[in-house]
Amino acid sequence: MAGIRDVAKLAGVGVATVSRVLNGSGYVSEETRKKIVQAMEELNYTPNELARQLYHKRSGIIAVLMPDVSHPFFSELVKNIETILYERGYKTMLCDTFKEKNSEKEYLNMLERNIVDGIITGVHSLDVESYQKISKPIVAFDRVLGDRIPVVRVDHKVGGRLAAQMLYESGCRNVLQFHGAKVVTSPSHERHMEFERYMREHGAGVTSVELLWNRFDTQYFKDVTRQVLAGNPDIDGVFGADLLMAYCIKAAYSQGRKVPDDLKLVAYDGTYVTETVTPEITAIEQPVPQIARELVGIICDMIEGKELKDHKVILDVKVKKGATTLNEFAEMAK
Amino acid sequence: MAGIRDVAKLAGVGVATVSRVLNGSGYVSEETRKKIVQAMEELNYTPNELARQLYHKRSGIIAVLMPDVSHPFFSELVKNIETILYERGYKTMLCDTFKEKNSEKEYLNMLERNIVDGIITGVHSLDVESYQKISKPIVAFDRVLGDRIPVVRVDHKVGGRLAAQMLYESGCRNVLQFHGAKVVTSPSHERHMEFERYMREHGAGVTSVELLWNRFDTQYFKDVTRQVLAGNPDIDGVFGADLLMAYCIKAAYSQGRKVPDDLKLVAYDGTYVTETVTPEITAIEQPVPQIARELVGIICDMIEGKELKDHKVILDVKVKKGATTLNEFAEMAK
Repeated sequence: MAGIRDVAKLAGVGVATVSRVLNGSGYVSEETRKKIVQAMEELNYTPNELARQLYHKRSGIIAVLMPDVSHPFFSELVKNIETILYERGYKTMLCDTFKEKNSEKEYLNMLERNIVDGIITGVHSLDVESYQKISKPIVAFDRVLGDRIPVVRVDHKVGGRLAAQMLYESGCRNVLQFHGAKVVTSPSHERHMEFERYMREHGAGVTSVELLWNRFDTQYFKDVTRQVLAGNPDIDGVFGADLLMAYCIKAAYSQGRKVPDDLKLVAYDGTYVTETVTPEITAIEQPVPQIARELVGIICDMIEGKELKDHKVILDVKVKKGATTLNEFAEMAK
Repeated sequence: MAGIRDVAKLAGVGVATVSRVLNGSGYVSEETRKKIVQAMEELNYTPNELARQLYHKRSGIIAVLMPDVSHPFFSELVKNIETILYERGYKTMLCDTFKEKNSEKEYLNMLERNIVDGIITGVHSLDVESYQKISKPIVAFDRVLGDRIPVVRVDHKVGGRLAAQMLYESGCRNVLQFHGAKVVTSPSHERHMEFERYMREHGAGVTSVELLWNRFDTQYFKDVTRQVLAGNPDIDGVFGADLLMAYCIKAAYSQGRKVPDDLKLVAYDGTYVTETVTPEITAIEQPVPQIARELVGIICDMIEGKELKDHKVILDVKVKKGATTLNEFAEMAK
């Protein structure tokens, strides 16, 4: 394979001149440039990408850290992020963090060493301090990683209130909600706080079940929904993430409870899971394509050194009408 | 940040000597090595990874090309591949090819330019010739890309026969199957050929519906199942991929057909989708973790220059019993 020296030799110039042409830096006369490009073509020379990256201190790679890409919400988000990054000329390096507590650290390290140009993170397994030490581009999805790191999220407070409203107005007076591990500093807890506040304010009972940290596998969802429904025979409404609600329907059936007659449900996220099951689950939908666009927009602006307009982007949720609440109320809440 | 020059200066040696230590090449006395390492520690020097990669001609990155990571089967596969690659010290670069016909080409190009060390591909949007020209590590999942490129797949012929058997023995005599676009050279077509052969041999009617090329979105699955079921009121059994079968149940319900009484189903892949719906779908399961292990094993062997034991790895499928066929037969076929 031809190298830069061969190109320089054939063009009758020095290696440094070829290098200037490759990197678009310094002055090279038009005539010399032509000779060099001709020599490159003649020799079928491909500039060594790694060398060029080294020069530019850019790898063109963004690391995307998510808890579990096999989870329907995260897989949809990763798909959208990858597509938009690709359009912007970046490649996606994927890291699932379900497997190891500290794999996140390794990617932060790669950011420091210029192997990736930026990080989009939807996980939080490290201390916020580890993030605060880094001055390179990081954007968080639904995670609070300190003031310096911008965050994209939905309005969980509205989401929680809509869920509570739909269950309450469907007649539920004793509800249960599944929420993520409280150890994670995520704005998503707001939806559960608001859900509980609304219910209590209206005199309804609320049981909250905290899920295990960093568990997103279907076996866990299946087991936990069965146990919780069996242990709470008096509840008339449930609120939780899509897959949990799908398994709740099955658990309810197996325990002789009819959905929605005996048990009403509202799911959070609104992925395809809510519409493949029967009855279709009423859901609070997070706008995945919009979330992805905001995350990519911010990380690209940071890499390109642009001033960020906003360090906190809060997007609207919407109601996706299903058949696990009373329909007229789902309509109303829209 | 400290550079290699600072290290050399503090250690009282030349830059070339520091470089030899970093790259483990050439002779450096133990005493000098110690001085250099001490200087690195003192200056908190991190070797420039890109420079080292350039030297070693390895990036430590594997590109994983899949049609659509939001599809439950591919998301599960990507998760498993990423986990095992991570254990082996490689990072995963993800590329969804649903978005553009030729994004595949770009990744082949990156392989040529040493930006990635290898490619695991589950897609095929390019001519087989484009692959044949490349002598670097590529392994295919369920795709025929010429003799030189190893392939990992399941025994689709057995899968197709099991599906046919279960529907036939559940009483189906007029069945329909959805199969992938025939333009793609995939061993997966074998399951449909075998399914049809078995049915015809036993005197049953078979209708085959070919799906559009490279479409894996739920809206398409929803639309196509509705149309096809409405247009084929006489069929008593259906065979197709998980999500299609999930939407078939819904389409059947909406058209007043009961599952499994009026319509029996066998799904292919056996992801969690088959167990979140009601009734749970009887499925032919592809062993995703094993597929991932084989793909990663082969690509690592190729990168490390080891001789491959086998260019064709064919794994067993198994029956995952659901409630959309007669149970005793699902049991029997196990």
